[in-house]
Amino acid sequence: MSKIQEQIIAANAAYADNFGDKGTLPGRPRKQFAILTCMDARLDPAKYAGIEEGDAHVIRNAGGRASDDAIRSLVISHILLGTREWFVIHHTDCGMETVTDQTMRQRLRTSLEPADSGTRRSKSNPGKQESHEGDYINWLTIDDPVQSVAEDVARLRCHPLVPEDIVIHGYLYDVNTGRLVRTPPATA
Amino acid sequence: MSKIQEQIIAANAAYADNFGDKGTLPGRPRKQFAILTCMDARLDPAKYAGIEEGDAHVIRNAGGRASDDAIRSLVISHILLGTREWFVIHHTDCGMETVTDQTMRQRLRTSLEPADSGTRRSKSNPGKQESHEGDYINWLTIDDPVQSVAEDVARLRCHPLVPEDIVIHGYLYDVNTGRLVRTPPATA
Repeated sequence: MSKIQEQIIAANAAYADNFGDKGTLPGRPRKQFAILTCMDARLDPAKYAGIEEGDAHVIRNAGGRASDDAIRSLVISHILLGTREWFVIHHTDCGMETVTDQTMRQRLRTSLEPADSGTRRSKSNPGKQESHEGDYINWLTIDDPVQSVAEDVARLRCHPLVPEDIVIHGYLYDVNTGRLVRTPPATA
Repeated sequence: MSKIQEQIIAANAAYADNFGDKGTLPGRPRKQFAILTCMDARLDPAKYAGIEEGDAHVIRNAGGRASDDAIRSLVISHILLGTREWFVIHHTDCGMETVTDQTMRQRLRTSLEPADSGTRRSKSNPGKQESHEGDYINWLTIDDPVQSVAEDVARLRCHPLVPEDIVIHGYLYDVNTGRLVRTPPATA
């Protein structure tokens, strides 16, 4: 067992020992909403938005983008499990702002690992040839997080599988303060 | 503002007011691991696995599946942000076990909402024609969650953008007990 596995298993044992009546929670989110946000390690949506077990769906990916897979999840969230209000929450200082499709692809072509861990070849590049696997992926990078929230809300709003009566909100999370800011700002 | 929005904003204000020194956390996950798990409302991976802000990436979608978008996120997690150990965690009683591609597509064709909320037409079906939008999506449903964990670990293991030295673990979360169970079980 790795050190990380040991830590997770120990924390999980403590959690399960104090599970209370959470084993009786229904699968349908009690508060009928879903959050789409970034995988960023600094973000804990349950904490920053006050979500208890059983309340809401939480969907996370790199950037919190309204990818096809996020839409798959949100449509299931609504159709199968009854959510009717969705929050798209990106954040300041996102790693997705530091790259473009071009730089991600170039980086994967040469299979460089992060600077602090040396160079290592991936399966896509066992013989030191350039790998072009990264060229086939749209990395959904971000230029400006206010704009990306607006674009993703618009994408969901226009999607043919998203019913008109789903309420969709956009927010930006500030990693320096922990605060959610509505985007675009509410009009008076 | 909706009632849910008010609740989230109030909870967020309390969180931000007690943010402490979390505003100085770096973007790179301190513990260099990532969890891929389900969006299910009953799951709080930070709680069930003991993750603090700054520790790890958390990726969530319907089922916790190793979708193309989850792979996009995990590759970014490793290449840009240095994670080297990944956990695929599905769970018992998953909504994705209750449907198949066929039943999801049929359900979307007739644009039925959940039984308790009546019938409502989506944009894909404004004129009561059958909509075939759902036919273009692979819903990544689950037959058996032990099998789906094994399949998703295998998919990641074999992916050309996943370096060989990334450690990948599979676990099943029991929603009745809160416990993580290794899958397949560890051999002695």
